Amino acid sequence: MSSMKVTLLAHTPDPERVAAAAARQCYSKHSATKAYNDLSAEEMKRLLKMVISSGHLSVLEHASFTFVIEGISRACSHQLVRHRIASYSQQSQRYVKFDEIEFILPESISKQAEAQKAFAEGLDACREAYRRLLSMGIPTEDARYILPQASPTKIVVTMNARSLMNFFELRCCLRAQWEIRELAGQMLNLVKGVAPAIFENSGPACITKRICPEKRYDCPLWVELYKK
Amino acid sequence: MSSMKVTLLAHTPDPERVAAAAARQCYSKHSATKAYNDLSAEEMKRLLKMVISSGHLSVLEHASFTFVIEGISRACSHQLVRHRIASYSQQSQRYVKFDEIEFILPESISKQAEAQKAFAEGLDACREAYRRLLSMGIPTEDARYILPQASPTKIVVTMNARSLMNFFELRCCLRAQWEIRELAGQMLNLVKGVAPAIFENSGPACITKRICPEKRYDCPLWVELYKK
Amino acid sequence: MSSMKVTLLAHTPDPERVAAAAARQCYSKHSATKAYNDLSAEEMKRLLKMVISSGHLSVLEHASFTFVIEGISRACSHQLVRHRIASYSQQSQRYVKFDEIEFILPESISKQAEAQKAFAEGLDACREAYRRLLSMGIPTEDARYILPQASPTKIVVTMNARSLMNFFELRCCLRAQWEIRELAGQMLNLVKGVAPAIFENSGPACITKRICPEKRYDCPLWVELYKK
Amino acid sequence: MSSMKVTLLAHTPDPERVAAAAARQCYSKHSATKAYNDLSAEEMKRLLKMVISSGHLSVLEHASFTFVIEGISRACSHQLVRHRIASYSQQSQRYVKFDEIEFILPESISKQAEAQKAFAEGLDACREAYRRLLSMGIPTEDARYILPQASPTKIVVTMNARSLMNFFELRCCLRAQWEIRELAGQMLNLVKGVAPAIFENSGPACITKRICPEKRYDCPLWVELYKK
Repeated sequence: MSSMKVTLLAHTPDPERVAAAAARQCYSKHSATKAYNDLSAEEMKRLLKMVISSGHLSVLEHASFTFVIEGISRACSHQLVRHRIASYSQQSQRYVKFDEIEFILPESISKQAEAQKAFAEGLDACREAYRRLLSMGIPTEDARYILPQASPTKIVVTMNARSLMNFFELRCCLRAQWEIRELAGQMLNLVKGVAPAIFENSGPACITKRICPEKRYDCPLWVELYKK
Repeated sequence: MSSMKVTLLAHTPDPERVAAAAARQCYSKHSATKAYNDLSAEEMKRLLKMVISSGHLSVLEHASFTFVIEGISRACSHQLVRHRIASYSQQSQRYVKFDEIEFILPESISKQAEAQKAFAEGLDACREAYRRLLSMGIPTEDARYILPQASPTKIVVTMNARSLMNFFELRCCLRAQWEIRELAGQMLNLVKGVAPAIFENSGPACITKRICPEKRYDCPLWVELYKK
Repeated sequence: MSSMKVTLLAHTPDPERVAAAAARQCYSKHSATKAYNDLSAEEMKRLLKMVISSGHLSVLEHASFTFVIEGISRACSHQLVRHRIASYSQQSQRYVKFDEIEFILPESISKQAEAQKAFAEGLDACREAYRRLLSMGIPTEDARYILPQASPTKIVVTMNARSLMNFFELRCCLRAQWEIRELAGQMLNLVKGVAPAIFENSGPACITKRICPEKRYDCPLWVELYKK
Repeated sequence: MSSMKVTLLAHTPDPERVAAAAARQCYSKHSATKAYNDLSAEEMKRLLKMVISSGHLSVLEHASFTFVIEGISRACSHQLVRHRIASYSQQSQRYVKFDEIEFILPESISKQAEAQKAFAEGLDACREAYRRLLSMGIPTEDARYILPQASPTKIVVTMNARSLMNFFELRCCLRAQWEIRELAGQMLNLVKGVAPAIFENSGPACITKRICPEKRYDCPLWVELYKK
């Protein structure tokens, strides 16, 4: 079974300084270049804290992050690409043949021996049908119709910091589907490593906005945060 | 087996007049409201022809079209939602159980008895595994991992006329994957019915721009258009 | 002096029904077409209320609204076009000559006789310089550099309901610049007339989200809403 | 008089390698991370050339560029921000007072002594009115209504490589307004310096696509390119 791997391939160098310099210029006579050179680490953090808390998030768009994501399911990538303020390059199932397919296995299934058996039998049948179709000369792009949504894919994703924050609000939520929540969690950890002042309070809306848009006040995370 | 059904649910009333009025205002002292009321059908067509041929396509964005699409595969919807200048509402596989699943069948498979048999066996195994997983209490959102990409979906799509034109350029191309090409063809027919002056020359780039971005000059469509 | 005029030129017919039908399909086996035909007015309103309160705003994108805006200043249009999820067609100052320029007059200036005099003298000088430049053969696109930001413009704007809601949150705020706040107010009134169930609670964030992103708890609107 | 200054503040490190790695993954079993590490400089250039010539431009979106632009007019920034696939942070005229205003001077005016005189007189009157208004206590955000469109502004802009290419096609065109054409030219030079394989053939559509969307075949650039 395949497992998710998320890598931060590239990002705007010094992303916090770039965003802070842009913020400073909005209310100053001087240029962002000057702010970029002059801002102390302290001022930079204070500025970022201010723009984030007051919701002036557009300056965060100048910081851009590129991830390589491997070993997620097509079910997950279908959800992922619904985020439109982002750029994607996905491995094509039309052209790339899958000979050793390692499928994604949901935990609810792996925890239950019989369910895992049923799942594995389904997968084996798909794999078998896929191979037979290819051997009969069916084009890869049509044979893949038999591949289950547990099929793995690779995708390169670029989002700016503002779009990422929105992504984390929606997808780090406990109500989000487990696979994309795991993906969002890994992405959040990676960007926290390179832009802590931007992302330190990122996460689901219950953390960032102290609201639950779905009004699930029995959610374990809500209880932990606000009801203890 | 399921078959594709595309309906034009709603659109900007009098879409050509709205786009033409916006175009007229750009180069006039008078308002678009006046142009909307005053333009003759002839002037309207001439204006639209001019903006389209000169590439000033932004005025076409004021005309918006909403489609209901049923009976396309998840493979197809995954491609569709990659078009980011559009709005989507898709039937959720996380919540909706599929008891009578009618899968999408590629023609290359339906044409060949043995391939169809292999495909059907794979599908049956998926269906069976899906039912077993649900009966064991596996959540719908996880059981669906066994569903093949041939699984049907329903989706509501809204695009403006400019975004549609770009969609048609890419997806009406003979090199596009067959299912999304069929979808694009049906959508094009529907919008031609209500906005002929906008869409009369829409289609793949070989028709609209007289170029083949992929440089496939042996393509049957290219040959038919330019080599006879 | 010019005054603002906002017209709703066109919109998705039955915009609430279209959005509600899209919402219904997300969690149903049936198509949006069926929902569009079957939903009672009551169900429609309940569905819209639910999607709005839970933040599932994407279904509102299927409803699109086109405005003609006349008599706003270039200062205002510059702010307006910063909203990127929208379509614009603006009267060109490069090509259209302004012979009888009616400038926009801020109320803070009109209330004070001396300020109004200073303003009028500045405007007269601009008008005079513009005419002299044109008479010397300077191209319109360059002569306009002398035109003040109080110069009027006409613009056609199309936004979907979700983008409008965001626009209203930012621009109906008492802290927003007065001219774009007036514009936003007029646009809100117009869409409330045709889609009350969507826009009935639209407005600044203090109304929609019961928060003040700028934390101005001494704002008269905040005081009126929550401190009486 | 102010003069334009454009600085490349930040960009995706190794932008060509990131875009090429994303392109490679689309048609390969291996990940973009591997391609990023393994691609030779030659392969990288060949890949980029291929994706650009075949119009598969989406991979270029992973490369992002941030500019600081100073000394452009508000007329120019108004045009600039019409490009919606981009991020902007602009110096606010609502809050920043301009005491030493250095206006932008079009060449057609500077070349002609009398025109320059008329222009200067208009500017002086604006400057004077602006100061009087401020001294009477008129808020900065209203006093600026008298400032001409020649007023300078500073803006931070981030665009990805694909959006930049589109920007250059439209704004490097000889028919584009002179100030934004000059800006586009400076931006193009800057990105050519750090991503030559991506931008070497960028420019107006007559260069990139060998077409003139406006069909101005008497344009000096067209004549130079194709009619000699």
